[in-house]
Amino acid sequence: MKIIKSLDKLFHYLKKFKLKGKSIGFVPTMGALHEGHLSLIRQARKDTDLVVVSIFVNPTQFGPKEDLNKYPRPLSKDLALCRKEKANFVFCPKPQDMYSRDFSTFVNVGGLSEVLCGKSRPGHFRGVATVVTKLFNIVQPDIVYFGQKDAQQAIIIQRMVRDLNIPVKVRVMPTIREKGGLALSSRNAYLGKDERKDALVLSQALNLAKLLIKNGSRDSGRIISRMRHLIKKKKSVKIDYIEVVDSENLKPLKKISGNCLIALAVWIGKTKLIDNVVGDDL
Amino acid sequence: MKIIKSLDKLFHYLKKFKLKGKSIGFVPTMGALHEGHLSLIRQARKDTDLVVVSIFVNPTQFGPKEDLNKYPRPLSKDLALCRKEKANFVFCPKPQDMYSRDFSTFVNVGGLSEVLCGKSRPGHFRGVATVVTKLFNIVQPDIVYFGQKDAQQAIIIQRMVRDLNIPVKVRVMPTIREKGGLALSSRNAYLGKDERKDALVLSQALNLAKLLIKNGSRDSGRIISRMRHLIKKKKSVKIDYIEVVDSENLKPLKKISGNCLIALAVWIGKTKLIDNVVGDDL
Repeated sequence: MKIIKSLDKLFHYLKKFKLKGKSIGFVPTMGALHEGHLSLIRQARKDTDLVVVSIFVNPTQFGPKEDLNKYPRPLSKDLALCRKEKANFVFCPKPQDMYSRDFSTFVNVGGLSEVLCGKSRPGHFRGVATVVTKLFNIVQPDIVYFGQKDAQQAIIIQRMVRDLNIPVKVRVMPTIREKGGLALSSRNAYLGKDERKDALVLSQALNLAKLLIKNGSRDSGRIISRMRHLIKKKKSVKIDYIEVVDSENLKPLKKISGNCLIALAVWIGKTKLIDNVVGDDL
Repeated sequence: MKIIKSLDKLFHYLKKFKLKGKSIGFVPTMGALHEGHLSLIRQARKDTDLVVVSIFVNPTQFGPKEDLNKYPRPLSKDLALCRKEKANFVFCPKPQDMYSRDFSTFVNVGGLSEVLCGKSRPGHFRGVATVVTKLFNIVQPDIVYFGQKDAQQAIIIQRMVRDLNIPVKVRVMPTIREKGGLALSSRNAYLGKDERKDALVLSQALNLAKLLIKNGSRDSGRIISRMRHLIKKKKSVKIDYIEVVDSENLKPLKKISGNCLIALAVWIGKTKLIDNVVGDDL
C-alpha cells in the first residue's frame, strides 16, 4: 500500500495503471474510518483492479462555527485499516495543496443543496461537490463509493456526475449499523455514554416509520408526527428536521412511495447525527 | 473526419484512442468558425495525435435578452472548414442532450466572473465554466485551445483548471486580426458596412495605448482617458468598459506592468465587440 501526499505523484502513478487498462475504484473519506467506510473499500476491492482511498478533512465543507478543528484525525489507525482492507493507494493531501490562497472555483448543485441538512449548513454541499470534483479529477476513477448514511450527499454527487458528464460510476452502499441500530458515523466518537443510548432514537424513529408503512400508512405528515412524538420523549434530543422527500429531487412527498427518502437529523448535546431509510427498504 | 452528435459515442470512441496512449487536442467552439478558430485547430494538429472540435452554441452562457437565437449557425460551412484543417472529430451535441430538464449543477469561478464583461452579463461566465467542464469531461483532452481575443474567458478557464485539478493543459493562442486591425469574431457578421469601419476603433484605441506605453506612460487612468477620448470621436460607438487589470486576478492596476491586461468592450449599434492586449505585447 502506497501512502501519497502529492497530487502530482498520485496522478502520475495512476495514469500508468490506466494506460494498462486497469480499473480504479475510489473511496473518498474524511478519515476516522469505521465499518461503513471499510464496507466501501471492500466493495471497491471486489469491483476494480486498484483501490484508492483518500483521507482529507475538507475545510470548505465546514461552516465557520462547525467542528473542523475538532474533527477526529486518527491517521495511523486509519492507515492500518486501509492496509488490512488491501487498499493500493491512500491519498492524504495537505489542505494548502488542495486549496491555494486565491482558490475561487466552486461547484454547486442547485435545488438539492439548500434543503434537509443544507438548510442549517449553508455552503456545506457546495464544499462537498467542489472537493469531490477535485478528487475525481486527480484520481480519475472508474467507480466511486459513497455510503447511504449520507443520503443527501450521495444524491447530490449522483446529480453532479450526471450534470457535469463526469465519466465515473457512482455506487451507494447500505448504511452499516451497530447491533442496537445506531448508524455508524465518525461523529459518534463525540457521544458520551448516555448520549450514545439516546442516539438509538434515530433508528428507532425510522423503524417506527417502516412499521407504520408496513401496516398501511401512506400519509407522510402522520408518519413524521409519530416519529417526532417518539423522539420528543428523549429530553436531551433536539430535532433538526424529519422529512419525507423524493429520493431524486429531494422535494417533499405528501404520500409515501417507492422512491421516497425518509431522513432525519437531530442534535444530541453538541453532536448532530443523521440517519435515513429509502424506498427500497420500506 | 467523424461528425458525432452523441455524447456516449464520442466518449467511447475517444477512450479507445486514449488507451493506445494517443494524445487528444480539443478546440471548443460555438461554430461560425473564422481564422481565429482555425488557428487553434492548426495548433492542436501540431501538438497532438487527435483533434476534436466541438460546435455547440451553449444556451447557459446567454442572458435572457442576448443573441442566443440570432447567433450564427453555418454548420455545413463550419464542417467543411474543420475537414480542411484535418480535425478528426467534430462534436455537435444537441442542447437537450447537454442539459436535461432538471439540470442544476454549475461551476462558478468567483472573483473573475463578475468583472469586465461579467458586469453586464451576469451568469455568462458561470455558463462558460459549466459547459467547458462538461466538454472536458466528455472529451478528456490532453491540451485545450482558447483564443486570446476572449481574454477574460481564457483567464477564467485557466483558473478553473487549476482550482478543480482538471488534468488538461490550456494553450491560449494570439488574437487573429483583419488587415485593418479588427479582431476576428463570429459576431462581426452582425456588423453593417459602416459599423465595420467604426469597429476599427477598438484596435486603434489599443494601438494608442501601446504607443503611449512605448513612449513611457505608466498611469492607467491617463491611458484609459486617452483611449476613451479616441473612441468617443465615433458617435455610433458606445463604450461598455475600458480597463487595465492584472492578467491573473483581473483586479484593476493603477500602473502599467508586465502582467497587465488592457481590455475594452464597446457597443456598435446592437453588436457588442471586445478586444484586448496583454503585457507580452506591450
